[in-house]
Amino acid sequence: MNYNEKALEAHKKLRGKIKTLAKDDLDSLEKLSIYYTPGVGAVSNYIANNPEQTKNYTWTNNSVAVISDGSSVLGLGNIGPSAALPVMEGKAMIFKNFADIDAVPIVLNVHTADEIVKTIEAIAPSFGGINLEDIAAPICFEVEDRLKNDLSIPVMHDDQHGTAIVTLAGLINASKITGRALKDCKIVCLGAGAAGTAIIKLINLYAHPEDIIAVDSTGIISRNREDLNEEKKQILKFTNKNNISGNLSDSLVDADIFIGVSRPNILTQQMIKSMHKDPVIFAMANPDPEISPEDAYKAGALVVATGRSDYPNQVNNALVFPGIFRGALDNNVEQITNQHKIKAAEALASLIEKPTKNQIIPSILDKRVVSTIAKIIV
Amino acid sequence: MNYNEKALEAHKKLRGKIKTLAKDDLDSLEKLSIYYTPGVGAVSNYIANNPEQTKNYTWTNNSVAVISDGSSVLGLGNIGPSAALPVMEGKAMIFKNFADIDAVPIVLNVHTADEIVKTIEAIAPSFGGINLEDIAAPICFEVEDRLKNDLSIPVMHDDQHGTAIVTLAGLINASKITGRALKDCKIVCLGAGAAGTAIIKLINLYAHPEDIIAVDSTGIISRNREDLNEEKKQILKFTNKNNISGNLSDSLVDADIFIGVSRPNILTQQMIKSMHKDPVIFAMANPDPEISPEDAYKAGALVVATGRSDYPNQVNNALVFPGIFRGALDNNVEQITNQHKIKAAEALASLIEKPTKNQIIPSILDKRVVSTIAKIIV
Repeated sequence: MNYNEKALEAHKKLRGKIKTLAKDDLDSLEKLSIYYTPGVGAVSNYIANNPEQTKNYTWTNNSVAVISDGSSVLGLGNIGPSAALPVMEGKAMIFKNFADIDAVPIVLNVHTADEIVKTIEAIAPSFGGINLEDIAAPICFEVEDRLKNDLSIPVMHDDQHGTAIVTLAGLINASKITGRALKDCKIVCLGAGAAGTAIIKLINLYAHPEDIIAVDSTGIISRNREDLNEEKKQILKFTNKNNISGNLSDSLVDADIFIGVSRPNILTQQMIKSMHKDPVIFAMANPDPEISPEDAYKAGALVVATGRSDYPNQVNNALVFPGIFRGALDNNVEQITNQHKIKAAEALASLIEKPTKNQIIPSILDKRVVSTIAKIIV
Repeated sequence: MNYNEKALEAHKKLRGKIKTLAKDDLDSLEKLSIYYTPGVGAVSNYIANNPEQTKNYTWTNNSVAVISDGSSVLGLGNIGPSAALPVMEGKAMIFKNFADIDAVPIVLNVHTADEIVKTIEAIAPSFGGINLEDIAAPICFEVEDRLKNDLSIPVMHDDQHGTAIVTLAGLINASKITGRALKDCKIVCLGAGAAGTAIIKLINLYAHPEDIIAVDSTGIISRNREDLNEEKKQILKFTNKNNISGNLSDSLVDADIFIGVSRPNILTQQMIKSMHKDPVIFAMANPDPEISPEDAYKAGALVVATGRSDYPNQVNNALVFPGIFRGALDNNVEQITNQHKIKAAEALASLIEKPTKNQIIPSILDKRVVSTIAKIIV
């Protein structure tokens, strides 16, 4: 039985992957009078007069909404809110299991940036943080920017920043194996949506590499293109310094690092052979990588990472978001900054003492991961 | 230590009254691959192609959002979303404790009917039902009507219908003690907001009483008044048949039943003495009744009910909403109808075999309550 069959069977059996639990039993009228009327009125009154105390008297000190409009789900695309719900429930499960955070899956039946922002701002007082998920680019950028600006609780679009942080962590350790510092590398990123642009921005901020070239489905992102959205124009300010045009093959000649957040089976052995000797291949497309690790190694790759759990070096957002929110909630951090992201990547990388080509990133089951990241979100 | 102090202390200690729980441990990469990527993709894909199967693969078969904008909370009025959150958490606790429903407290930072409706419709695919709470009249009427019309999951404004159902249940049993059928009674309802108008409508539907007179803060609701909102105009179609004007005292002369959903300490012994012999007094104001049971009995009341747990005959919504939603979720009921409400009131009343003046309503701790009500929501 493959994962698809197992998943369908397991989900049908559980009928929902998370549930709620009352923190105390309501087994007496006394308790009802304390937790509900009339006693709860005193708590509401107290919060009305001391709004800064909300966190100490409600679950907002530990609750995070996992929110998606279902417009860009895994490799499935725009499948809508109901079909996205199992993914958000899975994320809520991960939040609980790894960081003991009370995460609530919320799927939205609206899809413009303005509607999404208004909806989330309307429900925001219910939660201590907002994890945005699987919202298509470029809408996801406006949504996150506006929410970060308007709300005083941490907001993070995980497809952007979770992916960028764990990718940077992996690259930090991969560069210890190649012996080539990131700042001296030519890096090609295939995919310039939510994940791709965030990865490019974070790597640039961290290392100012020799060159970064972004490639989307139309080809190399250059200043000659007239079809670029605002986010792609932004990354052009510091990418493709020679303003080359062409396709993926053209971009990869002499590149040190390939980062793929695009589509399965799109990178060929031939392309890898055109890269710098001992290249690093991060082939992170879902559900299958841009090239199989076997083929990548055959073509000369020195280090290969994918998004899959059945190969070594799984670049998995789940390594990042639980710790980020755990730290933000515990330390009353209202904004996840670029410095947080870089420190989180460094902290995650530091958990592998001696990186090898089969271990550049900790396992999601490594108990140190969440606490190590949470500690630096201050 | 009184309830207020106990409540503040208990809430500060718990820091939130509900939490989430994953239904299975994520203790292996295998489980992560089944519940999250890549396996969950098959579930999302399946739901995208079979949307009617959503309930069987997600928590929507057992999840209810408890939603308020904090505009009319207990006796506290418009205290806003954060201050309303402890009440919604308390309600979520009750949902879990009594009906094993996964209820999520959602407080809204928007307050017009249109914004509230749009927000709730946007998040509706996340849940299997919507319990509206503590939304001020008359906005609550438009909000509920539109949501019931637009959504295909059960929506109930508990301040209206939960209160109406449990009040009717109490009156059914009180009339067995007085020996006067509801249809032969003159009934005065003080308070014509969410609860008052719903009570009046449900009693009228059930019994067509001799007369019902609604009284609000301006006085008796009559056809001479020019300050009435749509909902109050609606109830005038079948109330105040003699079109009398005046204040509360004027309305109560010869009345059989007083129903108060208004303000503490507003009913006098003198007023009760002007009522029909052996009157029924439902003084349900929060946190203190319109008259204390002691004073009501002193003035000649035969049966007295309040909203408080420290007197007999607690008219408590918590007797109703868990069973209503339990039944609706289990039986795929998309609309809570008037017939459901009447049957729920009858079912609740039937649990007291021989009503006495100290027991016209079951205790919230009576284990039969939820299943008895759930059974008739089909």
